Amino acid sequence: MKIIIIGLGLIGGSIAKTLSSAQDFEILAFDSDQNTIKNALENQSIQGSLHSLDDLGNAEYEDSVVIIATPPSATDEILKSLDFLFNSSVTITDTTSTKNSINKILQEFNFPKNFIFSHPVAGSHLSGEKNSVADLFNGKSTILSYHDSVASQHVDRVTNLWSTLGSNITVLDAELHDQIFAYSSHLPHVAAYALLNTLKGLEQDDLSDFSGGGLGEFLRLASSSPRMWADIFSMNEKNIAIAIDDLMKSLGILKEKIRKDPQSLQTFLGELKDFKESNY
Amino acid sequence: MKIIIIGLGLIGGSIAKTLSSAQDFEILAFDSDQNTIKNALENQSIQGSLHSLDDLGNAEYEDSVVIIATPPSATDEILKSLDFLFNSSVTITDTTSTKNSINKILQEFNFPKNFIFSHPVAGSHLSGEKNSVADLFNGKSTILSYHDSVASQHVDRVTNLWSTLGSNITVLDAELHDQIFAYSSHLPHVAAYALLNTLKGLEQDDLSDFSGGGLGEFLRLASSSPRMWADIFSMNEKNIAIAIDDLMKSLGILKEKIRKDPQSLQTFLGELKDFKESNY
Repeated sequence: MKIIIIGLGLIGGSIAKTLSSAQDFEILAFDSDQNTIKNALENQSIQGSLHSLDDLGNAEYEDSVVIIATPPSATDEILKSLDFLFNSSVTITDTTSTKNSINKILQEFNFPKNFIFSHPVAGSHLSGEKNSVADLFNGKSTILSYHDSVASQHVDRVTNLWSTLGSNITVLDAELHDQIFAYSSHLPHVAAYALLNTLKGLEQDDLSDFSGGGLGEFLRLASSSPRMWADIFSMNEKNIAIAIDDLMKSLGILKEKIRKDPQSLQTFLGELKDFKESNY
Repeated sequence: MKIIIIGLGLIGGSIAKTLSSAQDFEILAFDSDQNTIKNALENQSIQGSLHSLDDLGNAEYEDSVVIIATPPSATDEILKSLDFLFNSSVTITDTTSTKNSINKILQEFNFPKNFIFSHPVAGSHLSGEKNSVADLFNGKSTILSYHDSVASQHVDRVTNLWSTLGSNITVLDAELHDQIFAYSSHLPHVAAYALLNTLKGLEQDDLSDFSGGGLGEFLRLASSSPRMWADIFSMNEKNIAIAIDDLMKSLGILKEKIRKDPQSLQTFLGELKDFKESNY
């Protein structure tokens, strides 16, 4: 089966590196950076490249799988430019962590029967093809979303793809996906940035001497690409705004409990610790 | 020199294990749990134990160093019970991460000349003597605070103690200590608990499938002892309340920036990332 990866970054590059060691896949890539393509050809993670996305309309790409693995804002534009593939034999999927804006595009096109949302819950604070690795998705979750109108052969192909990559697959409604991720993934990143903004405002030297080891790990959430997170936050703005309000409420609850007696505070912290141990 | 460790937990136990391999120290301990004392004697991290803190008034303990290494709330009570040692030749220090309530006790006693605040910025989400290790303080910061009235021989002894333990020593005013730690250490823990409270409120199963790897590291801040953190939060309540308000302001700023254009959001996130890279 032909796999066409659009965007050879951390995710696209890692897909290529993993699949290149599996049987039965011919891996081709499209990337605006020709050095990236050259490197991937040299390390044999891809077998060829496309010069133009328009080529995907050619007969040789029938029944192939197209993976759009670009940053979220670029994904929208690329998907629109691939409208000539909608409802064809080609399967199209993405890798983004917000689904809302793509969903609007799909709606404009009356929900094409061959588009499946993919969200591999894997990554790194590093980015780019040079940081891609073969086992990035192994044992990690990948969330699939698709409309009722989608044809089962396309679902099967995308399911097979992520299974080959070693992912544990969960199917989730696209709207629910964005609501859940606003809390489970986007909000912790917002919290890390907000904490950094608070610490920055102190203008105190040598702050790291005054914090334990855990803080560095927490703040590592803010080490990822600002471009990617600006994209994600903006595209899931409404859900994240609600999540931020909820976090503020929880901060208010804690502030009040800290003001009251240490005994009930200890019980409260113990319950949260128990929740953490059974869920993370 | 005689070192008397009151409370053989993670901190006290780690002090004992490190010093027992150094020359010139005789290490004695007091702990309400006789099993802990028995273990420490067996693994030779201490050379003996005290049956009552009143014994510290005996001539044999002159010029020794007493380290109170109990949880913050117990530290207050123990310090008060040691009032017969105030202004003696014995040096007294603590290991707690909030200084406010001890400072009030010192004030009652007109600032004894032989008490030095110690705050080793080292620890673990694990607790207890069984988790103590010999190299816990090596390369870590320890903050000392003391009043102008303190005699230099006591400062020298405590400085020598933490140097032997491998710590980098910083001297800080006790009030400033509590203000800085409210932000640099206590606030991140509050944020982790608040985030847990928000996620708990969702009542969504399998939440960990929907978050990246960074979240687990962040939430590990909430894995520490609820008793210890209830103590710390309560004892530094006023400073933490101000820090929580500041964090809420930062969350509000982020919410607003997310609502506006992605470009200025990206610039903002980039600045915070830069601050992180140069400070943590």
